[in-house]
Amino acid sequence: MQRTTNATFRAALTEGRTLRTAGAHDALGAMLAEQAGFGAVWASGLGISAARGVPDASLLTMPDLLQAAVQMQRRVRIPVVADCDSGFGNNLNITYLVHEYEAAGISAVCIEDKQYPKLNSFAPGSQDLIDTTAFADKIAAAKRAQTGDDFFVIARTEALISGLGLEEALTRSYAYAAAGADAILIHSKQPTSAEVHAFLEQWDGRAPVVLVPTTYPDWHFDDAVKAGASVVIYANQGLRATIDALRATFDSIIAHGGSAELEAELASVNDVFELQRLRQWMELER
Amino acid sequence: MQRTTNATFRAALTEGRTLRTAGAHDALGAMLAEQAGFGAVWASGLGISAARGVPDASLLTMPDLLQAAVQMQRRVRIPVVADCDSGFGNNLNITYLVHEYEAAGISAVCIEDKQYPKLNSFAPGSQDLIDTTAFADKIAAAKRAQTGDDFFVIARTEALISGLGLEEALTRSYAYAAAGADAILIHSKQPTSAEVHAFLEQWDGRAPVVLVPTTYPDWHFDDAVKAGASVVIYANQGLRATIDALRATFDSIIAHGGSAELEAELASVNDVFELQRLRQWMELER
Amino acid sequence: MQRTTNATFRAALTEGRTLRTAGAHDALGAMLAEQAGFGAVWASGLGISAARGVPDASLLTMPDLLQAAVQMQRRVRIPVVADCDSGFGNNLNITYLVHEYEAAGISAVCIEDKQYPKLNSFAPGSQDLIDTTAFADKIAAAKRAQTGDDFFVIARTEALISGLGLEEALTRSYAYAAAGADAILIHSKQPTSAEVHAFLEQWDGRAPVVLVPTTYPDWHFDDAVKAGASVVIYANQGLRATIDALRATFDSIIAHGGSAELEAELASVNDVFELQRLRQWMELER
Amino acid sequence: MQRTTNATFRAALTEGRTLRTAGAHDALGAMLAEQAGFGAVWASGLGISAARGVPDASLLTMPDLLQAAVQMQRRVRIPVVADCDSGFGNNLNITYLVHEYEAAGISAVCIEDKQYPKLNSFAPGSQDLIDTTAFADKIAAAKRAQTGDDFFVIARTEALISGLGLEEALTRSYAYAAAGADAILIHSKQPTSAEVHAFLEQWDGRAPVVLVPTTYPDWHFDDAVKAGASVVIYANQGLRATIDALRATFDSIIAHGGSAELEAELASVNDVFELQRLRQWMELER
Repeated sequence: MQRTTNATFRAALTEGRTLRTAGAHDALGAMLAEQAGFGAVWASGLGISAARGVPDASLLTMPDLLQAAVQMQRRVRIPVVADCDSGFGNNLNITYLVHEYEAAGISAVCIEDKQYPKLNSFAPGSQDLIDTTAFADKIAAAKRAQTGDDFFVIARTEALISGLGLEEALTRSYAYAAAGADAILIHSKQPTSAEVHAFLEQWDGRAPVVLVPTTYPDWHFDDAVKAGASVVIYANQGLRATIDALRATFDSIIAHGGSAELEAELASVNDVFELQRLRQWMELER
Repeated sequence: MQRTTNATFRAALTEGRTLRTAGAHDALGAMLAEQAGFGAVWASGLGISAARGVPDASLLTMPDLLQAAVQMQRRVRIPVVADCDSGFGNNLNITYLVHEYEAAGISAVCIEDKQYPKLNSFAPGSQDLIDTTAFADKIAAAKRAQTGDDFFVIARTEALISGLGLEEALTRSYAYAAAGADAILIHSKQPTSAEVHAFLEQWDGRAPVVLVPTTYPDWHFDDAVKAGASVVIYANQGLRATIDALRATFDSIIAHGGSAELEAELASVNDVFELQRLRQWMELER
Repeated sequence: MQRTTNATFRAALTEGRTLRTAGAHDALGAMLAEQAGFGAVWASGLGISAARGVPDASLLTMPDLLQAAVQMQRRVRIPVVADCDSGFGNNLNITYLVHEYEAAGISAVCIEDKQYPKLNSFAPGSQDLIDTTAFADKIAAAKRAQTGDDFFVIARTEALISGLGLEEALTRSYAYAAAGADAILIHSKQPTSAEVHAFLEQWDGRAPVVLVPTTYPDWHFDDAVKAGASVVIYANQGLRATIDALRATFDSIIAHGGSAELEAELASVNDVFELQRLRQWMELER
Repeated sequence: MQRTTNATFRAALTEGRTLRTAGAHDALGAMLAEQAGFGAVWASGLGISAARGVPDASLLTMPDLLQAAVQMQRRVRIPVVADCDSGFGNNLNITYLVHEYEAAGISAVCIEDKQYPKLNSFAPGSQDLIDTTAFADKIAAAKRAQTGDDFFVIARTEALISGLGLEEALTRSYAYAAAGADAILIHSKQPTSAEVHAFLEQWDGRAPVVLVPTTYPDWHFDDAVKAGASVVIYANQGLRATIDALRATFDSIIAHGGSAELEAELASVNDVFELQRLRQWMELER
C-alpha cells in the first residue's frame, strides 16, 4: 500500500483553468472532496473551529490548524490549502508558521490582513485591518521563510469585508502581490457577485485571484471562469450540510426510537470501510 | 461564560432508566447529540478512525482517541464514554489509560476482549479474543487504577461477534463483572435482536448491560427498555449520515456549478455561529 | 499503582510559609524538583521554548504550553503553576485558556501584562505593556471563567522590567488584585534584590507576592521569607544546568571517543528506571 | 531566517566512515548534539519516555515518539533516526508508521524484533522476540511502504539481549537484510564489547551495522571504526547527565537557599537565548 504523494497547489493551479476547491475540517471531508472531483481542499478555519465547538476567533492556534491540515493532506493526493487566519502575530510568527507548514508537507497557506486575534469575516464585530505595508511585510517575510520553490502563499484581503471599498482592496492587493504573494484572495460578504466582479474587472492579472462565494452562491462556476478567477473555494457548504445531517439523524433516532427509518438514506458500514480503504490495508497482513 | 461542568456517566446512568447514547467523532457531533436529547456521547473508535481516513484497526493510538474524547467532553455537559479498543496492550497500558482518561476528565471508558491490534467488529478478518481470565485481569487492573469513585469501566465482550456463542458470552460477562466491570457491553452483528435478547433474558442483572443496535436497527428503544438494557448506543449513524451528506453536497456543487441549489437545505452560517456560541463568547469583550 | 492525586497550588500556599518553586520544562524536571523538596513546579515558558529550540517570543502557543504543563502535572503530586505568557490575546483567549487549563487539572496559571506577541523579559527588545485597566479586565475575565474554587490566577506585572518604576508597579499590582488576582508576581531584572525589596516594603499585603530571583541570585531564601514573599520561583536554573551538562557530556564523548570517562558522574540506567518507577509498573503484570 | 534543510540519514552514512550519533529526547538535546559535532541524532525511546516520566514499556505510542522526533528534526540539519520500538503491532501498523514518519520529514527509523508491548532492553523482564520470518516480513512491509528512495529502515535484533546467542543473532540479521533492511542494529548488554566484536567478525558486511555501547563504554570509537561498525549510538548519556545535573542543581538551591553558589557553573540566560537563535529571529521584525 503506497502512501499518497501529493500534488502541490502550484502544480494544481494550471494556467488558464479554474481550480474548484472544497472546504473541509477533517480527513474524511477532504477524501470525499477529492472523490467528488475537487482539485484542492481548503482546510477551513471556520470548519476546524466548528468541529471543535469553538468560535472562529483565534481560539484555535497554529498547531491546531496545522494538525488538522496535515491530517487531511496525509489522506489525499490533491493539495490542501491551509487557512492560517491572520498569521498569529508578527513576522516571527509568520516565519515560524511557514517553516512548520512547509516541513510538514503542506504546499499552500492563506494569510489575511486582519488584526490578531481575528474574528470570522461574517461575524458581527471588529474586522479591523492592519496597515497595508505591515501586511505586505508579513507576506514578504513568509516568502523569505520558505525553503523550496513550490510553497505558495495566498494573501487574503478583507478590505471589502471591513467596508473599505474597491479602491482600497485593489491598492492592498497590488501591494501584497508586489511583496511576493503568489495569489490574492478577495473576500466579499455581499449577496451578489457584483463586488468581486468589479474587482476582477479592474485587476491587472499580475497574480491569480481566489474567490469564496459563500454569500453569493448564485455565482455559477462558469461565470467565475469567464470573469478570470483562478480558484473558487466552496468553503463551508460541507460543514453546513454535516450539521444539517447530524441534526436530522439524531432527531430521527430520538423520535422514532431507533435508526430503522434512516437506514436507507445512510451510507452503509461497508461504505465506511471502503472510504477507510480497509481491504487494501488488510492485504498487508495477507 | 461558564465552562461546562460535566455530569459523570455513573450519574447519567440512573437506576431503572435506559440511557440513549449517540456516537460522535468530534465536538460538533457531541454538541448536536446533546442538543437532540441524548444522555451521553460515545467517542467512537470507528468514527474517529474514519474522520482521520484510516481503518479501525488499531492504527490510531490511545492519545489520538483520548484527544478526540477530551475535545468532545470539553464542549458538552453530558458524559462522554470513550471507546478504548482492546486497551492497547497489557496491564501497564490499561493502567496508564485509566490514569490519563480519568485525569483528563473523561468519566467512562469501554475496553473489549479482543487481541491487540484489533480489527473493527464488522470487518471480515480475525476477531480472536484473549483468554477470559486475562481480560478479567485487565478489568481488575483498570478498576485498581482509578483514583475517584466516579470512574466507570465498561467491559465489552466480542464473544458473539467472534462466533463463540451465548454460553461463552455469558461466562465472559460474569467473569468481567466479578473482576469489577461497572457494566457489560454485549456486541452482536446479527440482523435481528434475537441474539442480544437471548443474552438479556439469561443475564442475572448483576451489572448494567450496554447494547449497540447497528446491525439490528429495527430494535425499537422501547423494546430495549423492556428487555432491560441500561444503555443503547447509536454508534455510527451520525458518521454514516455525514458521509452521505458530504457526498451529496460535493457532487451537487460540481454538478450545478455552485451551491445555489443546496442553500435551502444547508444549515446557515448563522446556525454555525450559534453552535459555536459566538454571541456568548463575544460578550466577553463587551 | 495509584495515580498521583495532586495538591492544588492554593493548598500548597499555606499562610505564613514561603513556597519554593522550581522551573521545569518536562515531567522529568518536575519529578526531580519534587524529589528535591520543592513545593511546586513552574512550567516555564522560557524552558519549554528552549526545549523546543525556539525563542520565548510567543512562537509556542497555548496548546503547546498546556501540553507541557499537563505532562508535568500527571507525574507529580505537587502543583504545577503554568506560565501562560500574556494570555494569548483578548478576553476570549483568556477565558478559553482558563477553561482548558482548569479542565485539564492544572490548578494555577500566571498571566503577564505584556502585549501579544510577547518577548522574554530578559531579551533586548520591546517590553511594552498593555493598559492597566485592559489587563485588570483580563484578570477579571480569567476569574469569571473558572468553575471551581481552587483555581488560582497569578497576575504578573512587567512594570519594573519595562522601566516604568516602582509606583507604576504598585499601581498595577493593586489594580490587578482588585480585579481578583489571587497573587501578584513582581518581576525584576536588577542584579540585586533592592528593587523587589522596595516593592515588598510598600505592598500592603492584600495578595501574596511571587518573586523570581534570576538576576539577583544572591537573595537568600531566608531573606525572601523575612521580606514577606509568599512564593520564590527558581525559574531557569534547571534548564541552564541541563544545557551545561549536555554540552560537557557530548563534548567529552567526542573528545574521548566514548563515555568511559563520564560513567562515574552519570546517573545509571537503573537510576533512570527508578525515576520511571519501572519496578512498580512491572508489578502490574505480576 | 532560512529553515533548516536536513541531510538524510542515508547521505550522512558515507561509505567507509563511522557515524557518531547522540541520543536525545528533545530539540534542545538534538541541537547540542549537532553543535558538539555528532553526525546524527537518536530519538531515543528510553529518553523520550523518561522525559515524560513513564517507563520504556510501550506506554508512549507512535504519535508521541513521532512528535518528539519531528520536534528534534525541525531544529537541526543532521538527520534524526527515530527509535520506533517494535513497530507498534502488525504490518498495518508498520506501514502506517513509515507513511507518517516519511511524510513528516524523518529519514530513518529503527524497528526491533521484540513483541508488543515491548520492555526496555536493560530492564529485568520478558525480552521475548517474534519469529524471524514474522519480523523479516515487517521489514519488507516497511520497505514497501516508503515513497522515496532516501528513507532508511534499521532492523534491530535483540537476539543477544534475550540470550539467544550469536548464531541466532547472525541468522536473524541475514534474514532482515534479505528482507530489505538498510542496516542492522545489533544490541548487547554485556559489560565488554566482546560479544559485538564476535558479531562484526562473522558478519559478511551485506548491510551496515549499528552499535549502542551503553554497557560497554570502554569500547573506544576508534575500535568501533576498526571493527567495521558503521554507526555508533551514544544513546542515553545525555539523559543520564541531565538527571544528574538537575538533581545537583535542585538540591543545591534547597541546601543553599538560592542559586548563588551555582551561577558560575550554569549556562547563562544569554547562552539560552543564543541556543534559541533569538537575535536571528528578532531580526525578522527589524
